[in-house]
Amino acid sequence: MSRTDKEIDEATDAKPSRASAARLSLYLRCLENWRRAGQATVSSGNIAETLGLSDAQVRKDIGYLGSPGQPGVGYKVPELIRAIREGLGINREWRTVLVGVGNLARALLRYQGFREQGFEIVGLFDADPQKLGLRVDGLTVQPMSALPAVVAGADAELALMTVPAEAAQDVADALVASGVRGILNFAPAVLRLPSKVRLVNVDLAIQLEQLAFQVQLGNIP
Amino acid sequence: MSRTDKEIDEATDAKPSRASAARLSLYLRCLENWRRAGQATVSSGNIAETLGLSDAQVRKDIGYLGSPGQPGVGYKVPELIRAIREGLGINREWRTVLVGVGNLARALLRYQGFREQGFEIVGLFDADPQKLGLRVDGLTVQPMSALPAVVAGADAELALMTVPAEAAQDVADALVASGVRGILNFAPAVLRLPSKVRLVNVDLAIQLEQLAFQVQLGNIP
Repeated sequence: MSRTDKEIDEATDAKPSRASAARLSLYLRCLENWRRAGQATVSSGNIAETLGLSDAQVRKDIGYLGSPGQPGVGYKVPELIRAIREGLGINREWRTVLVGVGNLARALLRYQGFREQGFEIVGLFDADPQKLGLRVDGLTVQPMSALPAVVAGADAELALMTVPAEAAQDVADALVASGVRGILNFAPAVLRLPSKVRLVNVDLAIQLEQLAFQVQLGNIP
Repeated sequence: MSRTDKEIDEATDAKPSRASAARLSLYLRCLENWRRAGQATVSSGNIAETLGLSDAQVRKDIGYLGSPGQPGVGYKVPELIRAIREGLGINREWRTVLVGVGNLARALLRYQGFREQGFEIVGLFDADPQKLGLRVDGLTVQPMSALPAVVAGADAELALMTVPAEAAQDVADALVASGVRGILNFAPAVLRLPSKVRLVNVDLAIQLEQLAFQVQLGNIP
């Protein structure tokens, strides 16, 4: 039976919003901690209290995942983890390349969280000839010219960009041309990308500015 | 003349929301690029187009800053930069300590953006005896026991926390006890802090998960 437009619309509407998706990632982090601690079940209230959110908000976000729990009984921790990973699309491996092999790149490569969540770094690239051939955590730094072949060969969809701001747009253009579909950008630069390519910016100075702003305000709830 | 409660309330209401503050940080980044490129004036439309926002949104956010521009004429770039820095409370130096001296810390210490925005790192701390006494970018790694004296002596208000998740709560507690008022936390841990202390979390796996989620969805506008 084919779905009507309305049904398809409703299915699309049922996807979590970006804000819900960000919160679901946070719930996942809590749930993984609880699983490690041996906790078998949780309620939406447990999650809400831990993260300082309302119970209604947590229940609404989890509602996007179908019905992984039973009202009044709560959720089984492993089942809710599985449901969130599925809802966020991270219940599979995401192959990822990294461009710009400095200290931040080394920190990211050693960051356990990426691998645990299914993100596998399959290629390292740098424009600096002095870095070419370096081995970092089992990978060899390659020139930018090798990017398209590696992306295609490994079917890499994501990229981590840890390059200086001046180089960021050129590198982003090269990543887009190679077929990468999403870029996590750490350069403090405003990038222009075609709409088919997703971009998440992590501007560390902005995070620190926001912290200073909140401290300055002093007592916003 | 003393202000009435209502006037004080209104002054408080006129502070930018967190979402506006985050956008103002982005505007600041654009404006600094334009200043470096020698551009003298901008319109709210220039900013809106660069960042993919609506003109009305940009004007509303800038409206929190008083009236740094003239309608139809636009803003003088240096004046708008000054107004935003003042509005965000970053038109002064913020002394900052860093706990956990690994690769991420080294990347942060070399990150130009922090110093440019007035954030000065005044102390490095690590629990690992093997790291004590190391010199990193002009600072010496000190034991956690030295934290209270350094925070008090340098009047440090902020902290960067780049420690493993297992250590994060203990380190956060020590930072709070030392008098730090805001923590930028890079550990993938859910921290409990007293309400007087501000917390901004940068969970890099969450950022990557959100990127994967957006790529997965494919074509959300």
